[in-house]
Amino acid sequence: MKTIEQQCKLAFEASIDWAIASTELKNKALLALIRELRVHETIILEANTADMDAARASGISEALLDRLLLTPERIESMAQGLETILRLNDPIGQIIEGWTRPNGIVIKKTRVPLGVVGIIYEARPNVTADVVGLALKSGNTIVLRGSSSAYRSNRAIVTVFESALKQVGLNSEGIQLLEDTSRESVTEFVSMRQYLSVMIPRGGADLIQRVVKESKVPTIETGVGNCHVFVDQTADLKKAIAIILNGKVQRPSVCNSLETLLIHEAVAEPFLPQIAEVLIQAGVELRGCPKTKTILPQVKEATPSDWETEYLALILAVKVVSGVNEAITHIRQFGTQHSELILSNDYANIELFKRKVDAAAVLVNASTRFVDGSEFGFGAELGISTQKLHARGPMGLNELSTVKYIVEGDGQTR
Amino acid sequence: MKTIEQQCKLAFEASIDWAIASTELKNKALLALIRELRVHETIILEANTADMDAARASGISEALLDRLLLTPERIESMAQGLETILRLNDPIGQIIEGWTRPNGIVIKKTRVPLGVVGIIYEARPNVTADVVGLALKSGNTIVLRGSSSAYRSNRAIVTVFESALKQVGLNSEGIQLLEDTSRESVTEFVSMRQYLSVMIPRGGADLIQRVVKESKVPTIETGVGNCHVFVDQTADLKKAIAIILNGKVQRPSVCNSLETLLIHEAVAEPFLPQIAEVLIQAGVELRGCPKTKTILPQVKEATPSDWETEYLALILAVKVVSGVNEAITHIRQFGTQHSELILSNDYANIELFKRKVDAAAVLVNASTRFVDGSEFGFGAELGISTQKLHARGPMGLNELSTVKYIVEGDGQTR
Repeated sequence: MKTIEQQCKLAFEASIDWAIASTELKNKALLALIRELRVHETIILEANTADMDAARASGISEALLDRLLLTPERIESMAQGLETILRLNDPIGQIIEGWTRPNGIVIKKTRVPLGVVGIIYEARPNVTADVVGLALKSGNTIVLRGSSSAYRSNRAIVTVFESALKQVGLNSEGIQLLEDTSRESVTEFVSMRQYLSVMIPRGGADLIQRVVKESKVPTIETGVGNCHVFVDQTADLKKAIAIILNGKVQRPSVCNSLETLLIHEAVAEPFLPQIAEVLIQAGVELRGCPKTKTILPQVKEATPSDWETEYLALILAVKVVSGVNEAITHIRQFGTQHSELILSNDYANIELFKRKVDAAAVLVNASTRFVDGSEFGFGAELGISTQKLHARGPMGLNELSTVKYIVEGDGQTR
Repeated sequence: MKTIEQQCKLAFEASIDWAIASTELKNKALLALIRELRVHETIILEANTADMDAARASGISEALLDRLLLTPERIESMAQGLETILRLNDPIGQIIEGWTRPNGIVIKKTRVPLGVVGIIYEARPNVTADVVGLALKSGNTIVLRGSSSAYRSNRAIVTVFESALKQVGLNSEGIQLLEDTSRESVTEFVSMRQYLSVMIPRGGADLIQRVVKESKVPTIETGVGNCHVFVDQTADLKKAIAIILNGKVQRPSVCNSLETLLIHEAVAEPFLPQIAEVLIQAGVELRGCPKTKTILPQVKEATPSDWETEYLALILAVKVVSGVNEAITHIRQFGTQHSELILSNDYANIELFKRKVDAAAVLVNASTRFVDGSEFGFGAELGISTQKLHARGPMGLNELSTVKYIVEGDGQTR
């Protein structure tokens, strides 16, 4: 078994070739990945069956089994995801800006790959294809630390990819799937500072928090979204119902779904019964503050922990507030700086909300579900960053790049 | 004494006011800082005298005493530094880009402050004024963790600044000087993730490494520069001498100075005796590889550790290499991704070096000493980042900002 350090070093050594690969070569490699994925579907499905059998025997939940499962349709969908990446513009090699200094030296700020990207993810083998595609297109080699329960599936996909890379002449050591998938191995992996440029944890809040705390490698924190909607006195209540319903029920398990409704006290009386009816009909459990309960006595009372919980389920906390300022204060206290929404027709309140709410995305009169790479028009998405350094909000290929200054002179000294 | 957590929380609470302060107000505040600094020169100098006396009594080295010392000229230079920052463009509020999606939602990528900036620095009280000015101009509040030996000086400067802020009506709690300056306090400070957006260590390699390893707050690593120059066969040797002399001796204690000379074997014979004469005359000690020693028998032999040492002193390691490829391999192995220089007239070799060397700045035929915020034309500099995330190379005000997406609609749902 190769050690984690050996595998990270291999990816680092391959990164010099990948970084200078032309867009033409990278696209040829992506085409090979897509072709080989389709050709070797059976091998991958067989490996997945072995993973599924082992997972079932170990008593894993149905929800986790469904994530782990691969089908011909899911493999086709992975191939189509790679086709999307193939069509994206290559950010590498871009000259972002350039200028000449008074002494004649010319400075060019150019876009280059990060180097080696580390990814830690859960038992979703489709992520393997996705992140390899994004890394390859942006000239980064990649070290994958998938779940042990998906190891056979991941290994089969990576083997297929390695053979595709060999066909086009790109160093196949640029994709490393960690062989050591023990829980302790994460700690070692996130200390590989000399080889890895960035660590991206993709998964639940626990995994992300562990990586953020332990990592010596610069990390991009993704995903946790305790998102609020504030319904102002002047909101269009009909549109408000549609937007809140969309934000809560269209896909409750994702980070840009709504978790708390803040309602202006002046419209709580007419609005809460209307929205409650629609939400309850859609299977949503409401948890209200004392004022909410005076209007909707049937709902459960919210406890302090409700305000800070990202349910990722059909539950919505509801609080009556005195106006936009209390809404902003509440969001500042409990929000996770992901996506925050105001529904209003009051110019001053909207402007205040936009300026004072600190989040990756602040929305006005549109569903939080739009905070997403493809809805933003980025083509593919690497995740949604909730941190402020390097990347914030939906991340596209640019976020897998850094800059290199090229300084050209003719003998200048200081 | 206020605890570290209390002080970080105060800065966090003030950050909402600072983030939305207009450029006009921030400039008014900077003018007040400049004025009060000049008016209260005596108070600051008295505090500094107390620090200097205590430092002398504790037997601190002359070099450190010189860093700690304030004089009327140094205070005036701090004021002038703030005047430079006053004249910089305010990056905050910039709409970086914006577009309309097919469904009619409008997305604007705007520039906003990071929030609260944490700075850990050594006993240079002038840094206090510098970083407060940069933070203020970019709308960030700041928590300063200066050296205990400079505490009285820093406290005097911060007190003067607080009174200046009060005069213009900007929340003076936006500047926090940590009262606890024990060595252990760094560990607590770098764990204040809930309040601090970024941690910037400014100082020696030991401090930076400690912060990078311990910090739970996203960190920008600055400063370590093991910079190389490669003299190619086709280099203009006269210009090469001037550039190498400039890079090594103009200011050897800074990160963009040269530490290793790599020389093409084909020109080692004529070039090494010439450059050695000039450097030795300037007081530089050379440490050479075995091939270097056959040409310059008088120089000390380089040990393996010489290749990885950032001397920050009048010492230069010298190695004869077979050509550009060996130079690139050496730099990849020992460089710190700061500034790397090729002196050559060969187009293909220059292109190869530019593409394959992975560093914040790659230079061609110009001194590494130009890799600097003011030499780049940024006006002021926050340091030189040697990491790849968020900021790379000389950092200006933009690097103290992040983005906020504003998404505006008219009832859209998914």
